[in-house]
Amino acid sequence: MPQTVRIAIDLMGGDNGPEPLVPGASIARERRPDIRYMLYGRESEVMPLLDRYPSVRDFSTFHHTDVAVKMDDKPSQALRAGRWKSSMWLAIEAVKKNEADVAVSAGNTGALMAMATFCLRPMAGVDRPALAVIWPNARGESIVLDVGANIGADAKHLTDLAVMGAAMARIVFDVDKPLVGLLNVGVEEIKGLEPIRKAGRMLREANLSDLEYVGFVEGDDVGLGSVDVVVTEGFTGNVALKTAEGTARQVASYMRAAMSRTLMARIGYIFARHAIGALRDKMDPRKVNGSVFLGLNGVVIKSHGRTNELGFASAIELAYDIARYNLVDVIQASLSSPQLAAARAASEAAGPRAARAHAEDKTA
Amino acid sequence: MPQTVRIAIDLMGGDNGPEPLVPGASIARERRPDIRYMLYGRESEVMPLLDRYPSVRDFSTFHHTDVAVKMDDKPSQALRAGRWKSSMWLAIEAVKKNEADVAVSAGNTGALMAMATFCLRPMAGVDRPALAVIWPNARGESIVLDVGANIGADAKHLTDLAVMGAAMARIVFDVDKPLVGLLNVGVEEIKGLEPIRKAGRMLREANLSDLEYVGFVEGDDVGLGSVDVVVTEGFTGNVALKTAEGTARQVASYMRAAMSRTLMARIGYIFARHAIGALRDKMDPRKVNGSVFLGLNGVVIKSHGRTNELGFASAIELAYDIARYNLVDVIQASLSSPQLAAARAASEAAGPRAARAHAEDKTA
Repeated sequence: MPQTVRIAIDLMGGDNGPEPLVPGASIARERRPDIRYMLYGRESEVMPLLDRYPSVRDFSTFHHTDVAVKMDDKPSQALRAGRWKSSMWLAIEAVKKNEADVAVSAGNTGALMAMATFCLRPMAGVDRPALAVIWPNARGESIVLDVGANIGADAKHLTDLAVMGAAMARIVFDVDKPLVGLLNVGVEEIKGLEPIRKAGRMLREANLSDLEYVGFVEGDDVGLGSVDVVVTEGFTGNVALKTAEGTARQVASYMRAAMSRTLMARIGYIFARHAIGALRDKMDPRKVNGSVFLGLNGVVIKSHGRTNELGFASAIELAYDIARYNLVDVIQASLSSPQLAAARAASEAAGPRAARAHAEDKTA
Repeated sequence: MPQTVRIAIDLMGGDNGPEPLVPGASIARERRPDIRYMLYGRESEVMPLLDRYPSVRDFSTFHHTDVAVKMDDKPSQALRAGRWKSSMWLAIEAVKKNEADVAVSAGNTGALMAMATFCLRPMAGVDRPALAVIWPNARGESIVLDVGANIGADAKHLTDLAVMGAAMARIVFDVDKPLVGLLNVGVEEIKGLEPIRKAGRMLREANLSDLEYVGFVEGDDVGLGSVDVVVTEGFTGNVALKTAEGTARQVASYMRAAMSRTLMARIGYIFARHAIGALRDKMDPRKVNGSVFLGLNGVVIKSHGRTNELGFASAIELAYDIARYNLVDVIQASLSSPQLAAARAASEAAGPRAARAHAEDKTA
């Protein structure tokens, strides 16, 4: 475990530049005094902020760069223009060079994924990175992945996602054996999306010591919090995440309308406004911790582009936990489990026979 | 346009049997006095209810059957045990025999789809049926399909879904040219899920007179109500629908907790309880109108399994509108548009060249 946790920050990502990020870094450092920062950004914008936040300045090294990736740059553009020199690239590269333990950016997701993948490369045995999000649910939080790093997944990749998500859950939620479910649909006849069924058989047979595979879960299980880790390929995961965000905003707008419609409701609002404000905070995507690129040789945290100070502070704290407990090593160890390899090999060898035998395999 | 609208009802579907369905039918008939019902169910359970609701009894024919499909029957079981004789089958068959204009059931979705497909058969030119749902959003309502009748879709099927959803929107929302979007993900690099892009090119080139194709939409557009019709294949649609239901329930549970946490909040709740009750109703999936199987030679409406009187009444009113304006004929006419056929043929002929030319095709 490192003495200090070294966190590289891209200060130019995000819709509002370094403005909310430096105060966010200050809040995080108050709570985790063993953080050291490596900051990347435009001197003229960053320096005045550092002067206002000496608690950040005094425990940071600052690296000036004029190049910033824009929120609407396409990944290919960002890579062409920002490689080797943008604040985003330099923060990621610090992880690669082992000058930082983890990188954090509020920048554009596609660009961040492209750069992180190009710079850090997928870890041995993993084909493609995944984006994992911490999803608030009725019981607390769960991890959902992949929410859009890649589209499509075969059975092997789905089991990689399960193992990576579970490793993250052990660290972030501090549970020994997280519950893991594969996202599927409820209509029996079409439960048979083969890569998902096959991944389910592999996970059941591998019977891994560091995760508890519970079977298929459905869309509403995500909000209910039935499992700690929900595994799905990136297209479905991205749609599910954005649909949930849209629904939360929609309900909030219903609530605003309902609370102003009648005099009685308006009076009620006055009394209940703190409770309603707290609820609004809870549903505000800017205030959730951020998401994590998994499956690379180094961890990169994506904070929300419209994040505020508190949101960015919690993204940094997430980065801190992940670095402190060496997520990359934990994932690597889990992925090299002989049980997993055996279950995968058996599944490949058995083929359609196993598929038939398990056709009635039911969700826990 | 028929003199009366003849609605066949499976009274044994749903979690609570005929209990909420007959009062629901009574409410719907008060609002739409030109309905006639054809009712299917177990005499011993239905008759006492009909005696209590003469407004239903006097405008219905009742057909006894002892066979009922259970909520947990698998589609194949339901088809084996319930074909020719269950209340669900008989209601669907009434549509096939042109004894009814539309069928309504609160029964198990998978069984209903299997029976409806088996009995009514896909309409000419449509490979597979789709399940369309009316989705409340911040501006009103939109239609989302397919929410789980079938998994996977090629470009041609996605354009079928667009045309069928738009036909339904014209009837249900009474708009001339509904806005139609294809559900996709926002990260540019992976916007290239080929069937979706190809369907987009076809719809743009067909430039149909009865729908306005606006391009790709994302998960959060569903709740925002950016378009009238959201088109997606069944796996993603089903996950999105259930995720949204889960999120709405989750927010409601946050709200309950927030409104009872402090004395002030509890006082506020007393004043605002009617507004909050109205909000809860709006978010209650039992009270939405139900979903529609499209693409068959006849329309079948699926009401929520845990529906109540008002929910079932609105499912019947949806069935009424759909039958009165001959949805099947409207779909058939749209599907046989020469522009659509030409765009499809051109897309097939052009192949990868067109794909490249449109690679930068952007969302409206």
